[in-house]
Amino acid sequence: MNSAQRFAEALPDLAWLDSDEIGLRQTSYWDASSLKGQALARPASTEQVSDLMRMASSSGQTIVTHGGRTTCVDGVQARSDDIILSLERMNRILEIDPVEGIAVVEAGVVLQTLQEAVADEGMFLPLDLGARGTCTIGGNVATNAGGVNVLRYGMMRNLVLGLEAVLPTGEVISSMNRMLKNNSGYDLKQLFIGTEGTLGVVTKVVVRLEPSIASRDVAMVALGSFDAVLKLQSDAKRVLAADMLSFEVMWGAYYDAVTGDGGHRAPLARGAPFYVLIEAVTDDSSDNSNSLVSFLESCFEAGTLSDGAVAASERERAEFWKVRDDFERILADPPVYLYDVSLPLRSMDAYIRDLEDAFGKDFPQGVLHVFGHLCDGNLHLFLTPRSASESTHEIRRLADESVYQTLARHHGAVSAEHGIGREKKDWLHISRSSEEIALMRKLKRTLDPANILNRGLVFDV
Amino acid sequence: MNSAQRFAEALPDLAWLDSDEIGLRQTSYWDASSLKGQALARPASTEQVSDLMRMASSSGQTIVTHGGRTTCVDGVQARSDDIILSLERMNRILEIDPVEGIAVVEAGVVLQTLQEAVADEGMFLPLDLGARGTCTIGGNVATNAGGVNVLRYGMMRNLVLGLEAVLPTGEVISSMNRMLKNNSGYDLKQLFIGTEGTLGVVTKVVVRLEPSIASRDVAMVALGSFDAVLKLQSDAKRVLAADMLSFEVMWGAYYDAVTGDGGHRAPLARGAPFYVLIEAVTDDSSDNSNSLVSFLESCFEAGTLSDGAVAASERERAEFWKVRDDFERILADPPVYLYDVSLPLRSMDAYIRDLEDAFGKDFPQGVLHVFGHLCDGNLHLFLTPRSASESTHEIRRLADESVYQTLARHHGAVSAEHGIGREKKDWLHISRSSEEIALMRKLKRTLDPANILNRGLVFDV
Repeated sequence: MNSAQRFAEALPDLAWLDSDEIGLRQTSYWDASSLKGQALARPASTEQVSDLMRMASSSGQTIVTHGGRTTCVDGVQARSDDIILSLERMNRILEIDPVEGIAVVEAGVVLQTLQEAVADEGMFLPLDLGARGTCTIGGNVATNAGGVNVLRYGMMRNLVLGLEAVLPTGEVISSMNRMLKNNSGYDLKQLFIGTEGTLGVVTKVVVRLEPSIASRDVAMVALGSFDAVLKLQSDAKRVLAADMLSFEVMWGAYYDAVTGDGGHRAPLARGAPFYVLIEAVTDDSSDNSNSLVSFLESCFEAGTLSDGAVAASERERAEFWKVRDDFERILADPPVYLYDVSLPLRSMDAYIRDLEDAFGKDFPQGVLHVFGHLCDGNLHLFLTPRSASESTHEIRRLADESVYQTLARHHGAVSAEHGIGREKKDWLHISRSSEEIALMRKLKRTLDPANILNRGLVFDV
Repeated sequence: MNSAQRFAEALPDLAWLDSDEIGLRQTSYWDASSLKGQALARPASTEQVSDLMRMASSSGQTIVTHGGRTTCVDGVQARSDDIILSLERMNRILEIDPVEGIAVVEAGVVLQTLQEAVADEGMFLPLDLGARGTCTIGGNVATNAGGVNVLRYGMMRNLVLGLEAVLPTGEVISSMNRMLKNNSGYDLKQLFIGTEGTLGVVTKVVVRLEPSIASRDVAMVALGSFDAVLKLQSDAKRVLAADMLSFEVMWGAYYDAVTGDGGHRAPLARGAPFYVLIEAVTDDSSDNSNSLVSFLESCFEAGTLSDGAVAASERERAEFWKVRDDFERILADPPVYLYDVSLPLRSMDAYIRDLEDAFGKDFPQGVLHVFGHLCDGNLHLFLTPRSASESTHEIRRLADESVYQTLARHHGAVSAEHGIGREKKDWLHISRSSEEIALMRKLKRTLDPANILNRGLVFDV
């Protein structure tokens, strides 16, 4: 009897899939290969997760956790002898309480499902990102998801009031705090937020809700230099303050690539060095004096802006966002590599220039497309090498080297929001000291002494 | 040669004080007794802290860390054989960068000193609390300080971008991240935020700054029921949204005690069941349509408010805040015990009623004074037992029992912002499960195997 059979026999209620059924699944949103795994367990309760982890821990069986599998960093790949633990049956919304401003959910609930249920109660779930239709709250917690509302509301870490997690050894840690403030002992939930499922399996979450936003204004502006972008963000932060929801920068090459013939309608003339999409809460005062519109007017008057447009309708608002969100055209010439770095604001421009140089040396035909959540310090890079001379493996190595070695010189971080997964673990040392990595290993060994849970994610023990 | 002599000889640069000199210091702001300790070290660098911890760890010498000693929970008491590690010489502001919105400081800098230096650069440090003139940033980090701006900016955890800490075993963990987003590996700084100095000594901090707020409106309103208070906070959160800076509730007995003859001028007639102080960013549009003023006008029109006043000058603003901040008159009849609990909003009113009952049974002459940061779920309670019949120890035990046993029934937390220290560790189990406390112990044993650093704070190992 193999390991999977022993588990299925001991824990018959876990709605097991065998390796053939597993193979029908795609590995992840970004990896179309057929999923591997010895068996896939679909527990319906925290107790069942605990039973599975206890048995796995005592027998040394490796476990890989699955939420919505939208990882950008190879966070869900399993080997053929792994057992996969999917939270897909633990997808109930247990409670939405507008008075307390909280939702209590099982970890497998899909982000968009929760967003919509919360909106039905007249409230707003601040987390939003492109993968909303597939990613799960548990995955959002495990990866400390970012997205488009970080500027005003913070990352997932800031939205999680409480959680329940199962340790690799099977103990259930229930920290289902519902209050904004609680300094009663160590804040243990931090062990499970952003640790990519390596220290425990998140099973339930208490999420903080906010009052819904009646309406938003969206503008697109063009700028001639990065200094002008920096000046605009600094003015916008001061004038619009917490009313600003998004400040998304696009380098000219990105904007030009996604607009024009066969692409999105260009809200502004193409060819400028930088474009910025700003979204802010609509000011409903009669004179609009605090609005995005009046802020941009003052910029035009001061001469700091020369080209811009405010979306006049919901349709136009969606069109503006599509330029930023829908980058399908950039993926047309594979391989294309996506990066997610963070940097001091002041270093961004020089970093991109230096990266263009370094990348251009290895790939003379290559193209670099850049956009990002500027105020968060977060840039996303698409590198298209357009090289026929090297192996894919070698192309990838060279691309990684140019991105991360240049980044190290500018004191950036190798992941702003996507995490490390398996993809970036060779580069973790760029952003973290050997003492830090040693402490991460020590935590992992303490909580997962048999090293069975999401083994090899983030770092090797 | 005793232990202190060995340390002083091995580490001569630590500006040692001996036990006599230590005795000249008061234990803490709340504890006027003479400070105990074998010796007090005042390192001037992280390396010196590391040297001290390494030597202490290998010799089993216990260390107690001191910041500004404003602890409300007996967090700084030392025994006569402890060595005290004071960060008072590590008080430099290393950098204030308005463009990146960060300040980089040594842990011993006093909060108000940093607030003022940041203001000089045209920026705003969001952390503010009563102890500002004495408490240190390192202590604010170690205790995850709250204060009066949590509603808009979050607690200290949300303001710390990076930090450096020395482990009990002497290793320096430098996680001096400067970016808003960084998911590059485990977020190790969380180990040192809110763990009350039990897992490491915080030596440097990168703090997030915000644009300064031009001006604020402050109002005081009186309400007839707690339901009316809840309705007001829900409306204010929706209408004023992120412009709201504070929403401080005072129970009638508190307001009446601090105002009137010999007390503060009462901005509104005394005798109402509840008073709320609201502070919001001033709307500088010409019609004030989004301001606190217009919000309150709409409440009067809707009949949800009947008595209120908006501060007409800076002097009046300060007067309003004094009613909430300066509770000297409540301390007039010692002993007076201060508590700091958090609760679901819906449970607050019932909790206070139940507590009045429980407390009244033990102390028929006793008085309960309550105020708090309502939207944060945080209430501060002053219990004045006025009992001559029992010993102080017994009075304290009965008071604690009525507060915490009643709290347990309402699913509250024994500390919202003050922490556990030594004072509340017998009550930690009210808010945290045995599995959670076991995991806290496991973390402590992993990082401090010799149990030398702030031994006996939060829990006993």
